[in-house]
Amino acid sequence: MDNKDKLCMIFGATVRKFREEKDISQEKFAAYAELHRTYFGGIERGERNPTLVSIVRIADALDISLEELFREFDVQRKDIL
Amino acid sequence: MDNKDKLCMIFGATVRKFREEKDISQEKFAAYAELHRTYFGGIERGERNPTLVSIVRIADALDISLEELFREFDVQRKDIL
Repeated sequence: MDNKDKLCMIFGATVRKFREEKDISQEKFAAYAELHRTYFGGIERGERNPTLVSIVRIADALDISLEELFREFDVQRKDIL
Repeated sequence: MDNKDKLCMIFGATVRKFREEKDISQEKFAAYAELHRTYFGGIERGERNPTLVSIVRIADALDISLEELFREFDVQRKDIL
């Protein structure tokens, strides 16, 4: 697994953590974030390299700031990489 | 200009602000971040919707955390949107 894949995995795990804390299903969350269900599933599994616009939609749907989302991403990245 | 374009513009302006504070040319910075010069120029002008992996490369090349980059992005977004 190269560094790119690891970054996508870490991002997906970060998003999943916040989503599960809110107790929303992946399917409902994807609809709320206006992302296709399979695309969003791929992001959470770390199979997709999401774009800025998708990342903003995810943070908005989680009702957290981008700063907050990436604070957690930075923590998980330090632990893994 | 729709919301997607605005988000890309805000991101580009945020990156440019940090890069200019470091007093590095766009060309040198792109090489350092291992991004193609024209792709990076497009990001700064808000013409590109950068991926997570490119965003991480940019933050690393700026020697700032993702959290710090997006704190400034959030501030600029609140001012504009």
